[in-house]
Amino acid sequence: VAALVRSITPVSLRDPHTGGTNYRDAGPKIPAAAVSLEDAMSMARLSATGEHVRVKLNMEAQMLPDANSADVMGEIRGREKPDEVVVLGGHIDSWDIGQGAQDDGAGIMAAMEAVVLMKQLNIRPRRTVRVVFWTNEENGAAGGKAYRDWLGADVNKHVAAIEMDEGAERPIGFDFGGTEGPGRGPSVSESAFRRAVEIGKLLEGINAAAITRGGGGTDINPLTLAGVPSFGLRTVGLHYFDWHHSNADTFDKVDPHDFRLNIAALAALSYTLAEMPERIGDLK
Amino acid sequence: VAALVRSITPVSLRDPHTGGTNYRDAGPKIPAAAVSLEDAMSMARLSATGEHVRVKLNMEAQMLPDANSADVMGEIRGREKPDEVVVLGGHIDSWDIGQGAQDDGAGIMAAMEAVVLMKQLNIRPRRTVRVVFWTNEENGAAGGKAYRDWLGADVNKHVAAIEMDEGAERPIGFDFGGTEGPGRGPSVSESAFRRAVEIGKLLEGINAAAITRGGGGTDINPLTLAGVPSFGLRTVGLHYFDWHHSNADTFDKVDPHDFRLNIAALAALSYTLAEMPERIGDLK
Repeated sequence: VAALVRSITPVSLRDPHTGGTNYRDAGPKIPAAAVSLEDAMSMARLSATGEHVRVKLNMEAQMLPDANSADVMGEIRGREKPDEVVVLGGHIDSWDIGQGAQDDGAGIMAAMEAVVLMKQLNIRPRRTVRVVFWTNEENGAAGGKAYRDWLGADVNKHVAAIEMDEGAERPIGFDFGGTEGPGRGPSVSESAFRRAVEIGKLLEGINAAAITRGGGGTDINPLTLAGVPSFGLRTVGLHYFDWHHSNADTFDKVDPHDFRLNIAALAALSYTLAEMPERIGDLK
Repeated sequence: VAALVRSITPVSLRDPHTGGTNYRDAGPKIPAAAVSLEDAMSMARLSATGEHVRVKLNMEAQMLPDANSADVMGEIRGREKPDEVVVLGGHIDSWDIGQGAQDDGAGIMAAMEAVVLMKQLNIRPRRTVRVVFWTNEENGAAGGKAYRDWLGADVNKHVAAIEMDEGAERPIGFDFGGTEGPGRGPSVSESAFRRAVEIGKLLEGINAAAITRGGGGTDINPLTLAGVPSFGLRTVGLHYFDWHHSNADTFDKVDPHDFRLNIAALAALSYTLAEMPERIGDLK
């Protein structure tokens, strides 16, 4: 009749985390809710004593019809190949509790600041560097899909896509070009991967040089599936799930120094991909 | 028109702490509320930018007329001097959010278990050892006052009072016989303090031997004021204010090993005070 999920978090002060539920078309749409670690443990203890645990669910959540929202974009037009694009960003929506500071306010602001850095330095890369704040990541990823649909055939003009959506803790590097598989897109060539590793070395000074095989991110996944080489910024991830999808995801959790390191990582990668003579996806 | 207080806690996941407000008889009774660290920081940041911060308070708190509640007691009657009493305990009420596991469920359960230990060991001390779960500590301390009033002149038969009301973290020792002062009661003699230090040494094996000068606790304060030598169990207090008076004060926060150490500390102290030939307060 319903599903209760122990909050996916290591740390709790009785704050439940929200999350999505997916239904098969044929199955029943049962209510689902996350409960705090404390309440999950309480139910488990009662149950272990043989107690018949009854839970009364009062939920206000409902699925409303789609409404309009918008992706937000800005760019520095490329000086030689303005129709070729390196896109970077995150998502402008968040779960409706908390402020969404880590998920994903920090991601979109860091992407914007990365391009602001280029502007302040009077850098106009060879190709266009575009920042996108995708909408509706949390509830269907419509913003990412709409962006790809809006591109149409021009999606092959996208040289790379970069997403920051794991919070603003200290960055360690990027996932790049995951393996083939359902929902994963084509894997990148060994040459492309080696080039990414070379680019990563630019970030050794801030200990963010690790290039690993993995996915890019939900917003850019439609681009990944269309063959655009995709990068996902990775962090140490020590505390992200303490705050993520809870009302504790507030601005004070963003460490300014770590935030600036993320900006640096995004700036260095996006600039290099936009400036280097070859398209990284063309390396065989 | 109102007072907002930044929650008295070092750690927060957007969980405000409750607390009491005291009014002078002559002054206005303005609403007062605690806000979470996150919200306090948010208001401070907005205010620092010159923003005119407006807060709308919707509060349900109200002061209801007094209602009946009860202190809960149990004891092992002394074998030689049953009318002389060592009392130990905590308070059975808690703030109405959370479970009050640390404040003060652990305190009353540890006091009871300390006496259960004596029962299991077939120990009947020279004097009576009484466990009291005082009521209404959080909101007026009526249970502690009622207990003293119930004793009447027999309060001078109380050899010592011991309270555990700082949570069930690892114990380090006891505060004993604070200095003179308003609301503090008479200080104990140097001889009594030295004896307490000797008793404390029984707890060196669990690193809980520290006897320091200080107060006993809210519930036993009426006894302290009446001249009863009073002890307050002290812990490392690393996390108590992470949970205290919030809805995160739940059973899972009680570490079973630390809890048992508190039982041991209460058992050793209360037994020794009840068994030793002299009354500790008579030592000059």
